[in-house]
Parts: sequence; C-alpha cells; structure tokens
Amino acid sequence: MPDYSIGVDLGGTNLRAAAIDRSGKMLRKVSGSTNLSAGRDAVVSDIVAAISSLRDGADRLVGVGVGVPGFIIMETGIITDSPNLPFFVDFPIRDEISKHLGLPVILENDANAAAMGEKWIGAGRDVDDLVLLTLGTGIGGGIITGGKVLHGFVGMAGELGHLTIVPNGHPCGCGNQGCLEKYSSATAIVCMARSLSLGDNLTAEAVYHLAAGGDEKARAIFTTMGQSLGQALAMLVNIFNYPLYLLSGGMLPAWDLFAPAMLAEVRRRSYNFRATNTRIEKATLGNEAGLYGAAYLPLLQAVLQGHS
Amino acid sequence: MPDYSIGVDLGGTNLRAAAIDRSGKMLRKVSGSTNLSAGRDAVVSDIVAAISSLRDGADRLVGVGVGVPGFIIMETGIITDSPNLPFFVDFPIRDEISKHLGLPVILENDANAAAMGEKWIGAGRDVDDLVLLTLGTGIGGGIITGGKVLHGFVGMAGELGHLTIVPNGHPCGCGNQGCLEKYSSATAIVCMARSLSLGDNLTAEAVYHLAAGGDEKARAIFTTMGQSLGQALAMLVNIFNYPLYLLSGGMLPAWDLFAPAMLAEVRRRSYNFRATNTRIEKATLGNEAGLYGAAYLPLLQAVLQGHS
Repeated sequence: MPDYSIGVDLGGTNLRAAAIDRSGKMLRKVSGSTNLSAGRDAVVSDIVAAISSLRDGADRLVGVGVGVPGFIIMETGIITDSPNLPFFVDFPIRDEISKHLGLPVILENDANAAAMGEKWIGAGRDVDDLVLLTLGTGIGGGIITGGKVLHGFVGMAGELGHLTIVPNGHPCGCGNQGCLEKYSSATAIVCMARSLSLGDNLTAEAVYHLAAGGDEKARAIFTTMGQSLGQALAMLVNIFNYPLYLLSGGMLPAWDLFAPAMLAEVRRRSYNFRATNTRIEKATLGNEAGLYGAAYLPLLQAVLQGHS
Repeated sequence: MPDYSIGVDLGGTNLRAAAIDRSGKMLRKVSGSTNLSAGRDAVVSDIVAAISSLRDGADRLVGVGVGVPGFIIMETGIITDSPNLPFFVDFPIRDEISKHLGLPVILENDANAAAMGEKWIGAGRDVDDLVLLTLGTGIGGGIITGGKVLHGFVGMAGELGHLTIVPNGHPCGCGNQGCLEKYSSATAIVCMARSLSLGDNLTAEAVYHLAAGGDEKARAIFTTMGQSLGQALAMLVNIFNYPLYLLSGGMLPAWDLFAPAMLAEVRRRSYNFRATNTRIEKATLGNEAGLYGAAYLPLLQAVLQGHS
C-alpha cells in the first residue's frame, strides 16, 4: 500500500493523468482528449473524472499536481494567458478542480512540470540545478534551482521561448520580435520550409525527412534552428552556470540534424561553456516528463513541509 | 563591542577595505591603489595590510570577504580569468590572503558582491531575489536568489555583460560577438562616439555632457545604449520573473538619457514585464556596494552555519 500522487498533463489537444508512487513508479494511467469544443465546465469535469478514476482507497493519496500550458499566477492558481487553453484564462482552474475533488491541487506551468520530472527521475536526476527547453509547436522553458522550480515572484519565470535571438526578427505573439521560438520550434521549421519554397503544406516531420535524406535547403533549416538554440543556450550558460541543460519535445528526434550547429554556437559564444564541463543533453522521459513532474510536486511539498 | 566583518574591494585600479558591523554600519575604512606594477606579492601584502589595519582587538571579527573582478572557481578560491588582474589568474589568491591573516577568507566576484550589498542594505533590501547590472568600463552581473548569490556549479553565474544583443555584432574578448557590454558600457559609449565622428579622445563623461547639452548624435548613442540594456533586461525578466532589477556603476548618472529607451524596450519585448509589477531601478550604494557585499558574505555564512 504505497503512498502515491496524481499528476495531470492538460494540453490543448491531450488530457493525460497518472498515479505515481514515491519511487517514481507509474501505477496507473489514463489518456484522453482535451475536448475544447465541449466548453470549460466539461473539460474541468473530464479532469476531475480522470483524477477520480486513478484513486485507490487502499493507498494514501499525497496530493494532485496539474501541469498546464500558459502563464500562471502561483498565489491564486490562475492562468493569465494561454493560447492553447483560451477559456481557462483568468478562470480559477486550480480551485475549481480542488473543489470538485475535495483535495488540494498544485497548478504548474507544463514546461516547469516537465523540468521537475526530468530532475526527479529523468536525465537530471543527478543534479539539483538544470534548465529544460521543450521544443514543440512553441518553445517552453523550465528552470530547476536547488531541486525546486524557479517561479519568480508571480510564477512566470522560465519563459525561455521568448528570449530575443534576432533583435529585429519575426514578430511574435508575445509582443517581441525575433523570439527563440520563431527560429527553433516545429512551427519555425515549417515557416522556414515555406519561405525556401520547399512546400506549402509540409509538416516539421516532413522537413526532417527531407533533411535526413540530404536535401540541402532542409539541412540549412536545421542548421539555423541549431544556431538559434545555441545562441539562447550560450546566454543561459552565462547566466546560470548550471551543470545541465536539457532539450525535450517533438523536435528532439531531429537532434542529429540541429545539435552540431547548436553546440558549435554555444562553444563559440560562451566562455563559461568552454571553461567548464557544462552538459547539454537530451531529456529522457519524453512526453511523460510533465506527468511525472506534476505528480512529484505534491510529494516534494509534503517533504518540504515535514509531514511526509 | 559589536561583532564586525571586513570587506575588501580589489579592483584593477583601486584597493579598498572596510570594517562593517552586523547592522551595516561602516566602522572604519581604508582606500588605496592597486599597485599592479609592484607585482603580485606586493598586492597580496597590501591587501593583508589593509585588512590588518582595520582589525580591532576589542571586537569580534566574524570573517573576511574579498570581491574581485573576474571568473572565479568557488571551490578552490581561484580566479580563472581576469583582464584587470592578469597576474592573479590561476593563483590561489583566497588561500594566500587567508594564510597571511590566519583567518578564513571568502572570495567573490565583484558584481556578485555588489548585488549582495544592495540586497543587504541598499535598493534591494526589501526583496530576496534581484538581478544587478554594473555599468562601467565593462558590464558585470550579480544575481541574488533567495537572499544568496547565485553561483552555478563552478562559480561563474551572472556573466550578464556577455548576453548576445546583436548576433553578428562587435567581437568581444570573451569570444562572442555582439555582447551587451559592447553596446551599453562606458567603453561602448566612447566607441560609438568615435564611429560617429564626435571625437577621437572623448571620455564617456564628455559624451554624456554633449548629450545632456542637446547634441543629437550623442543623444542617439545613449538611446542605443538604453535599447541594448532593454533587450537584455527583457530577457532577464522573462527568465527570472524577479521583482527587482538594479543598475549601478559609473554610467548610472546618465540614467535620464538612457532609461526612457531602455524601459520602452523592456515593455515592448517582455510579456512578463507588462503583466507584472516588475521594478527596474537605480542601485543606491554607489561604489560602496561591493565593500558592503563582501563584508556581508562572512556574516551571512555565520548565520547559515548557525554559529553567529
């Protein structure tokens, strides 16, 4: 009868939840769709139902963690901006779920949750300080400091997809120009392929296959992606001097195409990188990182509060 | 008979030291020159003599902190790179001073020490998390996290003068191109004045007076300086979401000339900044910040180790 925790990964497309014990063993898991068209209340009901289905009266449930895409105010558990979950903006999602369950809930940004998962039982298990970049449709970031998520004073720390890479570059929805995610995300790969006339309806995966097959234009796209990532990572290495920087997300399979340019750029741009044994590596938990990390949050809180 | 601590600020030009009590009151202070031409041993002797002159047998000396410009390995107390103190590179400066004094010594990067000073009794006294940029000949950075200096795993965190602002910009001694300090330091102001034919032998102060007097070219230089700072600060705000970002150093008197462009740029480039009450302000301790911060390090260590 192990103590366990429930982690939820709420995305714009998928809703997944898992019961995970203290040792990091996944006991039970449910996966479904985020039914945005059914409306906010229906999605909240789906989340609550997913969590409830994972409960087992024989064991002690330590708590519930929920990872969501978007900017979060930690104190209130409210999402202030989320392109993928528009109807949850300014809605008290944490407290709504909590009320339905009759249990406390911890709300966390999805990339922060993924970083926490990698730190707990993934590629970062041997360090207390790391930075994670999630390379998907956009680019998210999670920073682990002293074994905990770096939140900042509101909860918006780690917005690493919006580091400025090209000062007068492509406009971004955040208001900035030249953000990292405009050059190194799956969306950016597709845009670059279109501008190089590789095709109007290519997916990032199709561009990957073209590049892997030797197409020079497609290869150049991944070089640009890697250089932009390298420029961002060089700054993060200069800022944090942490031992480990991890990459995850849907673009990770293209590692061999972008990593050489990325690492050359970090080496060139960062004295800290050249002078230390800083590691830049693949995350290892795949898209389960967020589930593990969300489940770990209540376990960690219980330890920190001394009633574990 | 108050307990006190001694802080040393060792620069390429000036050597200063002060005895400071737990309340932050400066009890005694000595100032002199860093006599580089006399050689390494002579400078070590000067440091030891300065510290010794500040001791007072009636009170209890808690410890000694020394701030130096350059990249530091915290574990060994060795400087690995320092343009201003070349003969101290790879020299065990911390342990040499300690041996001569018969006292433990804490070595710290000068900008980190200044950030600590501002957090202790300066503009950051009301927060536990802040970022400081020192705008001088170069640009240094210090990050305070949870009331302590963010060191990273080696001790090289906070190299904020080497954030990339212009990807293919001016080459920097660190190996990168387009570093912040190539656009927003006193040295950068002089270079820009030269390239705009304002004069070959102008100091940054002279450019400041030209701008203050209405010279359009000189004003444009400070606008560029402010925009570059704003681009860097927007990234730091997106990364840390800390409540306070401080500027200090010799360029601070030009605040009115560069701050409007700086703040407009942060606002434009950072969603986090627009969505929160993030403060960007002047540091208040001037060039004493490093002395206060260096002195605070042993006091803080004593508290953390529980034998204060």
